[in-house]
Amino acid sequence: MVYNQYKKTLEASLGKAPADLVLKGGQVLNVFSGEILACDVAITGDRIVGLGQGYEGKQEVDVTGKFLAPGFIDAHMHIESSMMTPEHLSTMVVPWGTTTLIADPHEIANVLGAKGVEYILEHTENLPVNVFVMLPSCVPSTEFETNGATLSAAEMKKLRGHKRVLGLGEVMDYVSVVGGSRQMYDKLQLFGDRMIDGHAPKLSGKELQAYRLAGVRSDHECRDYKEGLEKIRAGLWILVREGSAARNLDDLISGFLRDNVDLSRCMFCTDDKSIEDIYKFGHISYNIRRSIELGVPPVTAYKMATLNPALCYGFRDIGAIGPGYRADIVVLDDFETVQVDSVWHSGKLVSSKSVPVEIPVNPSGIDVTGTIKIPKLTKDDLAIRLKTPTVPVIQLVDYQILTKRVTATVKTDESGCFVPDRRYQKLAVIERHHETGNIGLGIIEGFNLTNCAIAATVAHDSHNLIVVGDNDRDMLAACKELKRCGGGYTIVSDGKPIATLELPLAGMMSRLHPKDIQEKFSYMISTARSFGVPVTVEPYMTLSFMALPVIPELRVTDMGLFDVTEFRFLDWK
Amino acid sequence: MVYNQYKKTLEASLGKAPADLVLKGGQVLNVFSGEILACDVAITGDRIVGLGQGYEGKQEVDVTGKFLAPGFIDAHMHIESSMMTPEHLSTMVVPWGTTTLIADPHEIANVLGAKGVEYILEHTENLPVNVFVMLPSCVPSTEFETNGATLSAAEMKKLRGHKRVLGLGEVMDYVSVVGGSRQMYDKLQLFGDRMIDGHAPKLSGKELQAYRLAGVRSDHECRDYKEGLEKIRAGLWILVREGSAARNLDDLISGFLRDNVDLSRCMFCTDDKSIEDIYKFGHISYNIRRSIELGVPPVTAYKMATLNPALCYGFRDIGAIGPGYRADIVVLDDFETVQVDSVWHSGKLVSSKSVPVEIPVNPSGIDVTGTIKIPKLTKDDLAIRLKTPTVPVIQLVDYQILTKRVTATVKTDESGCFVPDRRYQKLAVIERHHETGNIGLGIIEGFNLTNCAIAATVAHDSHNLIVVGDNDRDMLAACKELKRCGGGYTIVSDGKPIATLELPLAGMMSRLHPKDIQEKFSYMISTARSFGVPVTVEPYMTLSFMALPVIPELRVTDMGLFDVTEFRFLDWK
Repeated sequence: MVYNQYKKTLEASLGKAPADLVLKGGQVLNVFSGEILACDVAITGDRIVGLGQGYEGKQEVDVTGKFLAPGFIDAHMHIESSMMTPEHLSTMVVPWGTTTLIADPHEIANVLGAKGVEYILEHTENLPVNVFVMLPSCVPSTEFETNGATLSAAEMKKLRGHKRVLGLGEVMDYVSVVGGSRQMYDKLQLFGDRMIDGHAPKLSGKELQAYRLAGVRSDHECRDYKEGLEKIRAGLWILVREGSAARNLDDLISGFLRDNVDLSRCMFCTDDKSIEDIYKFGHISYNIRRSIELGVPPVTAYKMATLNPALCYGFRDIGAIGPGYRADIVVLDDFETVQVDSVWHSGKLVSSKSVPVEIPVNPSGIDVTGTIKIPKLTKDDLAIRLKTPTVPVIQLVDYQILTKRVTATVKTDESGCFVPDRRYQKLAVIERHHETGNIGLGIIEGFNLTNCAIAATVAHDSHNLIVVGDNDRDMLAACKELKRCGGGYTIVSDGKPIATLELPLAGMMSRLHPKDIQEKFSYMISTARSFGVPVTVEPYMTLSFMALPVIPELRVTDMGLFDVTEFRFLDWK
Repeated sequence: MVYNQYKKTLEASLGKAPADLVLKGGQVLNVFSGEILACDVAITGDRIVGLGQGYEGKQEVDVTGKFLAPGFIDAHMHIESSMMTPEHLSTMVVPWGTTTLIADPHEIANVLGAKGVEYILEHTENLPVNVFVMLPSCVPSTEFETNGATLSAAEMKKLRGHKRVLGLGEVMDYVSVVGGSRQMYDKLQLFGDRMIDGHAPKLSGKELQAYRLAGVRSDHECRDYKEGLEKIRAGLWILVREGSAARNLDDLISGFLRDNVDLSRCMFCTDDKSIEDIYKFGHISYNIRRSIELGVPPVTAYKMATLNPALCYGFRDIGAIGPGYRADIVVLDDFETVQVDSVWHSGKLVSSKSVPVEIPVNPSGIDVTGTIKIPKLTKDDLAIRLKTPTVPVIQLVDYQILTKRVTATVKTDESGCFVPDRRYQKLAVIERHHETGNIGLGIIEGFNLTNCAIAATVAHDSHNLIVVGDNDRDMLAACKELKRCGGGYTIVSDGKPIATLELPLAGMMSRLHPKDIQEKFSYMISTARSFGVPVTVEPYMTLSFMALPVIPELRVTDMGLFDVTEFRFLDWK
């Protein structure tokens, strides 16, 4: 802060000059003392300058009868997964009280490398939320898939100087970590004095100890409370995730409450949350509300969305309503149900009665379109010729992105090729960055499509083209459709696209208004249901996770069928 | 950590290779989960590499039946005030479980400037404790006294790069802070991204808000719990201090417990603790034990000495027993009474059954002797000629370093000069750095000396020569004695030194063994008592605080009698 502004804030703090803004008469959550106190909040510029009585403001807003909480922090999320531009996303989450996003641009980095990270940084300037970036640690995610670009330690070194880059993003490749890989060591060393996020589903015992020892400091992949407790004990900060595809909050929180576990090392994140779910349930506000419903003391739940992540990520001026803090304030009609009235960010009103301010789109110097590069495909490319009809099959788990590896006997034709039916269907992953022609194939149970294929160019983490269906014709048509429009999601039947959500930005984001994306996506989901996808499976997001070779148990990448538990490709055809 | 060592620690963590050391069978305090868990602790090099069962070690130590806690952190202290060299001090505190000191070398910096700070950094390498330094913010402390050297923002800029420099030390000059002084702004800005310690006794209301706004993040000057609570609410971390001259723990902790205040923003410090008190009562171990006695849940009390300060000061590998943390471990015979059996630091045994390891003294390239520079003094120099015998008098407060300003009618001689008696005695502060001849004089109530003077060259914060007595002859002899020996404490009667503790290092530290310092000092205290100093007053340390113009209410500096509340010199003679 320059000296003149510093003097100005001090004078307002002392009450010697009017503040720019005073929120008067509210009940203010003090996350330091754990109390709710009646006091006014004086703001000058983007700072809270004082709490107390008797502050005068050039602007005064009466918040009598309302509660004031610090803006909520989503401690781990991927902007790209929302399908929105960063600008649109910010206006979506702000009405729910989220004012800080810690984003890992891991998805776009897998398509475009450092250029993708720079695009995210460029488009998160001057938003109604603070956006901080954790640099993707695993681009490519593993050596078992082909992605668009590599983000090396050398490139990271350049990016880490950016004022909104906090540290190293989710270190998914825990095999390299505990195995002591030199490349991983170089990355971990580079961020030794910064925050390093983890991602270690099911990691336990001595491997978990080694993972923490190597420098990783958080985890958001706890499936149940025992896993969470073991990770807390190992010294990891725990992000209680409630997204669209992965929802861990109820399990974790209920267990922690049952065993009276100290929640001071816990915070909230969404990881990946769909537009529809944000519209329906809210954002971090949902994590708070649901935790309170489950029995977490309200102040503790709010701290998990504010002070706790601030301590973990080393924020010095975010996460509390106090002098010197950024004026990010949520005005609430009701504290326990997290009913948001209005939201202030850096001293400016950014949402009122659920209506966010309009914000201009940041001008872009970086082109992220034109990223779908695949050859012409034929039925032969999709043929799965089996030595035996008893084969490993990917089985979906209800409401989870985990899969099970099961063994099943499937139908084959006279030439020994797999024939999909209602239960066992075909999954293909087609490399889409370099036109290599790589195609990985597998058999999957749980989508239950009938005379239909669905496809996506959002396919964690390498974001190749992934397609599932009960017939080759629809699958091929789906690939063609996504090539045409530069990426997105599509649903095809009888060889014709029924609906397509075009995502031309890196094959994963759209410039459309969130409402339009959501309506289209919502229509596509109900269409998928009409073709058989059960309610226990979110068709598109679940599909998007079927190529991710770091989440157990069985996946398909463009290189083949991969067993995550054994960490190797299966020789199954 | 170099790659080979990193690999070695990972292998030990995974149990693939034996650890260097395993502490087996203990009950381990897990500060993350707030539990005490039975597990082994594996250590390789200076790191804890794993917690759990089944670790093998090249060395194995049976700690069955004992408790293991992270090494204790003294979050704010002055090494120089102990009168010991840093090396000796470290061996004094280690047997009590303290393994980290956050030192503010404010005292020696006031004598020698940056050179003093460098001396402390030089002598705190390779000790059995971690020593971190907060750079003194107020050297000189105020413009109302003459000190030895100035520590400018420019000099600080050079020192802040040192790997053990954490931030800016206690910002005592709160008047400059809330007044928006440009010089103070420069210093605060320089440490805007680092920790900034506060020191703001009695600061409250809007001034406290402004003080926090300016960038200060902690305070260790809470006299009572209401002051502490207000400061917590304002966002300051609170250091619950229990030193020799200032003891705030009982008041603060009892109040916090009564009002059920969240203690997660609190930690412990000693600030200034005498050798005698460390011998008698322990170090941070005392703060923990006493807090538990008062009713703090034991795990919470231990967290105040470990994880809480680690969070506040941004330590990433200190403050917990967990993989990746430094192997600083206190082995306890009893948890609630903090009975220490042995202490490990960086994986090495540094104290066993209260006996610390021997450590070599760090070689010194910096000479800090020869700092007492005063002219020859006469009785005239000490004469207090009064216009009226009713004058402001400094009144000591039992067991506190605060003073009261009272008005009293004192005895005068025929020329109007003050004549000391049993109650009202003479206090003189003689500038000792530059031989300016500056002498400040005052009248003080509470020492109750008879036929005696005591003097010190430890006199916060400028460390001039301070002397109190009931007669000029003894006062002059005391000054002469301290000039002779290069500084220290002395007690004089009948014109002759009865006992002198020589402190030739900067006039404040001795190379003597702590036991010898303590015996001499103890003898000097009992001698002072025999000359009338009541048990409610620690004669030498209290004297050392009588020149400090930032603690209310009335003080004497080499420039005159200073009212701290009014922040001005009094024209009283």
